[in-house]
Amino acid sequence: MPKVSEEHRTARREQIVSAAMVCVAREGFHRTTMAEVIAASGLSAGAVYGYFRSKDDLIAALADRAVGIVEPFFRSLLDLDPLPTIPEAVGLLAARVSAVSADGPDITRVAVAAWAEAVRNDAVNERVAARFLRIRACFVDLARGLQAEGRLDPDVDPEVVGCAAFGVMPGFILQRLLIGDVTPESYAAGLAALGGRR
Amino acid sequence: MPKVSEEHRTARREQIVSAAMVCVAREGFHRTTMAEVIAASGLSAGAVYGYFRSKDDLIAALADRAVGIVEPFFRSLLDLDPLPTIPEAVGLLAARVSAVSADGPDITRVAVAAWAEAVRNDAVNERVAARFLRIRACFVDLARGLQAEGRLDPDVDPEVVGCAAFGVMPGFILQRLLIGDVTPESYAAGLAALGGRR
Repeated sequence: MPKVSEEHRTARREQIVSAAMVCVAREGFHRTTMAEVIAASGLSAGAVYGYFRSKDDLIAALADRAVGIVEPFFRSLLDLDPLPTIPEAVGLLAARVSAVSADGPDITRVAVAAWAEAVRNDAVNERVAARFLRIRACFVDLARGLQAEGRLDPDVDPEVVGCAAFGVMPGFILQRLLIGDVTPESYAAGLAALGGRR
Repeated sequence: MPKVSEEHRTARREQIVSAAMVCVAREGFHRTTMAEVIAASGLSAGAVYGYFRSKDDLIAALADRAVGIVEPFFRSLLDLDPLPTIPEAVGLLAARVSAVSADGPDITRVAVAAWAEAVRNDAVNERVAARFLRIRACFVDLARGLQAEGRLDPDVDPEVVGCAAFGVMPGFILQRLLIGDVTPESYAAGLAALGGRR
């Protein structure tokens, strides 16, 4: 077997993940078979199993990808000056998630499947919880930055704000998928009003 | 076959739903079999299939139950005088959901499974979306009531506030299940701070 470059391996792996994402966005994890993923990828069964030894391995990779999709974009928001408010950041993340899902397979459908899988599969739980913590940490950093700019109550624990702010994203995703009448803009506006009267 | 009373039928149905809830909270919808549910219910296969013709029928009933569990409690909150703020209401709902799940099978695990099932199963989608709309309508009613009491910005659309407020609950459930470090109190406090500085 010829030695393949790391670059080649990364590209092949990506080809499999992309093909699997299309299948799982349509059918969920349980109804998607390795045979379907292999057919969709255009690679041989041997090649696919060379990257993912089992369906569980592939599920963990897809869950990680779907849940973590906004993380790099969120990090870029933390470099803005002035920082977005928390409702503004949620609106920007919601718009990003919607745009990514409109462009390709609906990654939010895979994210919801990943949440359910994480509840009962320890390997997926580990990957999803780690992603949750990283995205939540971005909200905590944002809260700290807003406090430094004097735009968020300095007496409130930024970790506590981060938990509540992170918790808002799943509700956007579920309403977008199951009801379909929320927009990033309206969601951000509603969120800004939650605390009460200013 | 003897005629059975409506009361008897309701009790039997409840016995099956309760048994199935324990199985699904542990294993999710896909790994739970009708044979397990029948064994857990203590009834005959014929009796169970008399109430739920298929596993899909049972899944729809469980999804409906799990997602709708907070609705009667939420309606009781709308009778309080003065009304709770939105962050306070979320804290009370979160505490309720946590208490119910600590007392019996963890119904929040079934709720997450129901969200995932709703994404790709039309019958479940219909039931879950209807429940979402009813619970969201409670948040809209709360927003209207707070506006009438002069405690929420009168210029903001209560429907828009309701969407954002409802969206906060799934994030509490996911963090409680997958990370485990949120409390109803801290979540409510973080939520109150989201809008910025008052």
